[in-house]
Amino acid sequence: MSLSEQWFTEIAENTGTAFSLKIHSKLHEEQTPYQKIEIYDTEQFGKLMVIDGCTMLSTRDNFLYHEMMSHPALFTHTKPSNVVIIGGGDCGTLQAVLQHSEVEQAWQIDIDERVTRLSEQYFPELCTANNDSRAQLLFADGIQWMKDADSNSIDVIIVDSTDPVGPAAGLFTQAFYRDCASALRADGIIVQQSESPLLHMDIIKPMHTSMRKAGFRHTRTLNFPQCIYPSGWWSCTMASKENTLEQIRADDITQRDFASKYYNEEIHRAAMALPEFMKAQLD
Amino acid sequence: MSLSEQWFTEIAENTGTAFSLKIHSKLHEEQTPYQKIEIYDTEQFGKLMVIDGCTMLSTRDNFLYHEMMSHPALFTHTKPSNVVIIGGGDCGTLQAVLQHSEVEQAWQIDIDERVTRLSEQYFPELCTANNDSRAQLLFADGIQWMKDADSNSIDVIIVDSTDPVGPAAGLFTQAFYRDCASALRADGIIVQQSESPLLHMDIIKPMHTSMRKAGFRHTRTLNFPQCIYPSGWWSCTMASKENTLEQIRADDITQRDFASKYYNEEIHRAAMALPEFMKAQLD
Repeated sequence: MSLSEQWFTEIAENTGTAFSLKIHSKLHEEQTPYQKIEIYDTEQFGKLMVIDGCTMLSTRDNFLYHEMMSHPALFTHTKPSNVVIIGGGDCGTLQAVLQHSEVEQAWQIDIDERVTRLSEQYFPELCTANNDSRAQLLFADGIQWMKDADSNSIDVIIVDSTDPVGPAAGLFTQAFYRDCASALRADGIIVQQSESPLLHMDIIKPMHTSMRKAGFRHTRTLNFPQCIYPSGWWSCTMASKENTLEQIRADDITQRDFASKYYNEEIHRAAMALPEFMKAQLD
Repeated sequence: MSLSEQWFTEIAENTGTAFSLKIHSKLHEEQTPYQKIEIYDTEQFGKLMVIDGCTMLSTRDNFLYHEMMSHPALFTHTKPSNVVIIGGGDCGTLQAVLQHSEVEQAWQIDIDERVTRLSEQYFPELCTANNDSRAQLLFADGIQWMKDADSNSIDVIIVDSTDPVGPAAGLFTQAFYRDCASALRADGIIVQQSESPLLHMDIIKPMHTSMRKAGFRHTRTLNFPQCIYPSGWWSCTMASKENTLEQIRADDITQRDFASKYYNEEIHRAAMALPEFMKAQLD
């Protein structure tokens, strides 16, 4: 069966898969200095943001990604006061981070201001924390920013980037991880989106190696569903110098004063379970 | 971007999503008395079986579904001797069931023999247990078979069916569950594929209700990834009369004498974790 023009399709050519959402209309399209951004109104997934042809987020299922990119790392750190988000221009991760009352300052550093402005317009529900006094939205190169960051100054770094091609490729390198390791305090944690366990072990495995070579003693990949990304199965990978990434603040999770749609203590622990084929490659 | 004829696409119209695999060629197509079966040779997922336009299984990712439809139920039952598979014509679930040395007899009851014959041809790696002396392959109506089954005769029933439309619709009803409850021993367990938690809570929630009304005191949904099914996130739902579905034979899992690609003890426990939105609907 073939798809008419009423569908937006992301073709992940190198994995031989494609995912499509039925659309009512294209609401916006622009070429920024960095990338092409499109916004669609879908039939069943709300709004859809697409960057350079790749689905970035939808109204319906972004909660999975944003909750899993923020809450596990923040509830693994014993006291996350200063948080830096590299990328994350749609502000959904920033919002989730600022739900944590322990957080005193959160920087969001995305190279492309237009992502944020379009998110404010089309995903206003993700941008409710943009004016929080603890939030700093910077539009700059995250790689350079991290190179310039004071050492031992950050508790949690969240790398909420596009795929490791184009502008985001530099965020998947040992050099970048070394700058992150330097900027993090001794008990700090970095967490990065790490693609699909089914399709991209060739990215996840070298990420662990690069993180360890950059000075992180502990690394761990967490799994979660993400319908609009290739294979529908996604992951994030945490790394740290001193924190073993095994203990979580279970009481604080149970007593959290914010709602979540996906995340809870059992889901956090579940995300840490590795399938046999991942264990075989990562051990 | 639109897809050329080099792709097979399943359109899940009522969810506004579609999933596509790039293909080399169509290897087979036939209309059986029950359904239309197609076999494709894909670029990156091996062989693909399609029934009535819906992706059924691929060489690359069927291990997820087959392992999760069999091992959790069998390792939750204290001594699974007699196992019945309703549907499952591709024989992948049967193979996984017969990896358990406790199993003395396993019946596979699929209405359409052609599914099995085509699986033997195109997915021979799933059919290695078809000649096991404990295996009985019957080609008959599973609903009627269960109605006629002796009461208190079965330990585990696995409902490995297509979606709840067409011939499989009768497998999602209270009447069928009542027959299953009667055929199961007091400590028996039924497990059924239960669609996507993201897309089909309108199927999962009534399934729990129907199972409980049919006499099952305990019900529990388990989550797992399944790339080629809508949303890439799938589930199975277990029910039982006496077994609380909370205890698993952890030592037996660790000491199992067969390999798995996805399943292990941690994955079993992880699959039992419910996201907040599922808890809210199922509690």
